[in-house]
Amino acid sequence: MAHLEQVGELELIRQLAAVLSSGPGVITGIGDDCAVVSYNAQDNTDLVFTSDAVIEGTHFKEGCEPCRIGHKAVGRVLSDLAAMGAVPRWAHINLVAPPEAELAYIREIYTGAQKLAGRHGLVICGGDTASSAPLALHVFAAGTVEHGGAVTRSGAAAGQGIYVTGTLGFSQQTGKHLDFLPRVAEGRWLRDYAGAMLDVSDGLAVDLARLIQASDCGALLEADLIPVSEFAGAQAAPSEKLSHALYDGEDFELLFTVRQEKASGFMDAWQSAFNTPCRRIGTTTAQSGLLEWINPDNQRAPLPQGGWLHYS
Amino acid sequence: MAHLEQVGELELIRQLAAVLSSGPGVITGIGDDCAVVSYNAQDNTDLVFTSDAVIEGTHFKEGCEPCRIGHKAVGRVLSDLAAMGAVPRWAHINLVAPPEAELAYIREIYTGAQKLAGRHGLVICGGDTASSAPLALHVFAAGTVEHGGAVTRSGAAAGQGIYVTGTLGFSQQTGKHLDFLPRVAEGRWLRDYAGAMLDVSDGLAVDLARLIQASDCGALLEADLIPVSEFAGAQAAPSEKLSHALYDGEDFELLFTVRQEKASGFMDAWQSAFNTPCRRIGTTTAQSGLLEWINPDNQRAPLPQGGWLHYS
Repeated sequence: MAHLEQVGELELIRQLAAVLSSGPGVITGIGDDCAVVSYNAQDNTDLVFTSDAVIEGTHFKEGCEPCRIGHKAVGRVLSDLAAMGAVPRWAHINLVAPPEAELAYIREIYTGAQKLAGRHGLVICGGDTASSAPLALHVFAAGTVEHGGAVTRSGAAAGQGIYVTGTLGFSQQTGKHLDFLPRVAEGRWLRDYAGAMLDVSDGLAVDLARLIQASDCGALLEADLIPVSEFAGAQAAPSEKLSHALYDGEDFELLFTVRQEKASGFMDAWQSAFNTPCRRIGTTTAQSGLLEWINPDNQRAPLPQGGWLHYS
Repeated sequence: MAHLEQVGELELIRQLAAVLSSGPGVITGIGDDCAVVSYNAQDNTDLVFTSDAVIEGTHFKEGCEPCRIGHKAVGRVLSDLAAMGAVPRWAHINLVAPPEAELAYIREIYTGAQKLAGRHGLVICGGDTASSAPLALHVFAAGTVEHGGAVTRSGAAAGQGIYVTGTLGFSQQTGKHLDFLPRVAEGRWLRDYAGAMLDVSDGLAVDLARLIQASDCGALLEADLIPVSEFAGAQAAPSEKLSHALYDGEDFELLFTVRQEKASGFMDAWQSAFNTPCRRIGTTTAQSGLLEWINPDNQRAPLPQGGWLHYS
């Protein structure tokens, strides 16, 4: 009998999705950053749902500063909503905590969660508490977007520029995986430009592979253009730093393509709107699923796959 | 420093709610079975959100039949939606499972979840997977209700009949805590009759205390009228059986009051609509927070408090 560690996360999700039935009103179901639903044809608004967990030992270490746990928990769902171009609205938090947990520590987690949620208009209006270990928060969030306006993973086509916000790599070493700023305003603004979009949670190489698979196109990255995060402790060679940028997870930056009719003047418009760094790192290509790069030796080659997934 | 086991679940929720800010569109926030929100004044529909967890060792035992785990996980959120009078719409499931879990077992959990969800029109359209132990499902659900039409805990007033569906007690011994049928159609129908409503998750005594506290009234139960579940293994005296009906949790029956103008003919209407048992068990009274009963010795007395709560 197969165990989860043998089949891997993607196959697990594929098999669970096969058990579940879709239904009326579901525009985008399992397989994107969020689900998109519509319940009222007269209404000009779609609802966007997402859920994520942060679990001690998996997503943060024991003894982590509590406000950072709350920040990360809310940041993850905000990043998912951002990747759809949605407006954050309401959230629920399910808390799992052992009976010996300190009340003050739990309260600080919620203070961190509220601080980030409040900054983005996300109202935490409910949840559940359960007595168990390890400490965990499961956050559910709902957002809204104009009917038909959600940006999915599947809207890219050959010949579009591929862009990423911020810098990538070393999120564990720098603490960015706890303190990242979800790109909510940027994601919302990108509705007018993006072909496809997602947030980089499992590493650039893995997440770009998802985007081109969903969009039925290919991609050509340029190694020299990939923005690598500064990490003072890194004594690594440039190629090793690049490897961190490609395969480390939890950067929660936006990865997107720009539609061809919007390509002209895109970077100027971006820089007028935001201080957040944004960089073109490649181009989508025609051959479905083919992920290539111009490597550091200036040769065109398949991008070696890596990245981090649960259960593998 | 205070630990969760010292402060108890209610105080924990009170303190966490104090950290969180409400916001625009929230009609009913923390403290009811579901949150109720409205995002569009022109729209005649409110959204209703709830979330619950089922965790191995807390809500089910190791080795539990997997389809029953999925049934309970979805049943809990359906019961919450029912208690608001809402139509179930969409759900997300966050799965926590250790890497050595069997794929076939997890798939069976989802089969049980889908079966119950499908019967009630609830579409499971997303979620998250994480590698950790113990096995757990966190389910988030969204429903809809006519604008202003959600039934809350706070709508009771003195002089209303208090009713409960089904029978109460021994849910652990009989397996009802896993196999219960959420009263979705009944809850929806009760919108036209109920003053206040909730589902009995922590025991009749505790949940009725919550209802009268939220409604700022009192209640007088009649011991002789409380419907006790049959349990073949019970050799207990009648008073001990009654104690199970009052203090056991996880029956997931609806507890509600009927508005005075709807009292006449209520039971006839119920019996025309449903085969589900329903019984009047008492009356709301004027003194806020006072929970009394006519005890088995036919004396009026305060109802002894008990019931089961997390962290206490």
